[in-house]
Amino acid sequence: MSEIKVPVGISNRHLHLSISDLAALFGKDHQLKPTKDLSQPGQFACEETVTLIGAKGVIPKVRILGPVRSASQVEISKTDSFVLGINPPVRDSGSISGTPGITIEGPAGRIELKEGVIIAQRHLHLHSDEAAQFGLKDQELITVKFEGARETTFGRVLVRVNPNYKLDLHVYTDEANAAGLANGDVGIVVKL
Amino acid sequence: MSEIKVPVGISNRHLHLSISDLAALFGKDHQLKPTKDLSQPGQFACEETVTLIGAKGVIPKVRILGPVRSASQVEISKTDSFVLGINPPVRDSGSISGTPGITIEGPAGRIELKEGVIIAQRHLHLHSDEAAQFGLKDQELITVKFEGARETTFGRVLVRVNPNYKLDLHVYTDEANAAGLANGDVGIVVKL
Repeated sequence: MSEIKVPVGISNRHLHLSISDLAALFGKDHQLKPTKDLSQPGQFACEETVTLIGAKGVIPKVRILGPVRSASQVEISKTDSFVLGINPPVRDSGSISGTPGITIEGPAGRIELKEGVIIAQRHLHLHSDEAAQFGLKDQELITVKFEGARETTFGRVLVRVNPNYKLDLHVYTDEANAAGLANGDVGIVVKL
Repeated sequence: MSEIKVPVGISNRHLHLSISDLAALFGKDHQLKPTKDLSQPGQFACEETVTLIGAKGVIPKVRILGPVRSASQVEISKTDSFVLGINPPVRDSGSISGTPGITIEGPAGRIELKEGVIIAQRHLHLHSDEAAQFGLKDQELITVKFEGARETTFGRVLVRVNPNYKLDLHVYTDEANAAGLANGDVGIVVKL
């Protein structure tokens, strides 16, 4: 089999909101204003931002990603977690049961999220056809190596296969900065 | 050969000062006030802090490490470099030729450092006896793996051998946060 090469997309802290939380933060019937399409089809960055308020500190201007979801979810880096004074687990997106909550402030009000703060597990988005071509399965854990002056190999990268997905390895700013990565840099799937 | 296990020590941004820069920032004949011994014998954290001033932003309360050195050197993370708006290379400590400068502010004045800002290359300090025991050579590049939920393998770790050193793998906050590491966590030297 030939080498599997994957481009990296670097995630900064962001959040997804439920319709009711969106209304509480931005007002009744507020509609998200998309400003930029994201790598995964149908996902977009919004004009709207909020302030995250933790026990130890505050992070302003945190971007909302749309569209709205069934449950709100706040995705931060480990570095952010120290600033806020919160200790979220590393989880797959959507898997928020038992995770810490946080206070969120928007222009129309504050909400106390009961749970939903995670550090998103590194993951590889890929289309079903690409998965078949590469021999990778949904939910499989793989290892991806990046060469360079700060050569780094990331283990336990979760494979997420969907006919709506496009090939993109999502890591956080912490991971990108540790490895000296910029958006679009290419890693190689390695078998260890 | 048995497995080589190495404990990690996490470096936050810090700086080393020359005698003349120390005087310019803190006043003539100022003596550094040690507050904590570091893992490497003779090195210590100081009570004194300064403000780093970059083109894009400012980072206050940056710790000085002693003792004084022949040339000032500012060691920051990649995350810090974005805050400051500066693009330092990844270098071994002491190797500052051609690196960017920065403005530093202390209680007695400001200095314009002409060069000396680096992102320190990951490195393993070890005593000459340990190096002999492990079969590692000074300036060798090795690879160190950390297990766990955020399994990460760091390549191009510079081996630094000295009869005054003590076994300690130095990485930055970026790298520690990417891998979910705390001080004292143990990695394994792997041959790739």
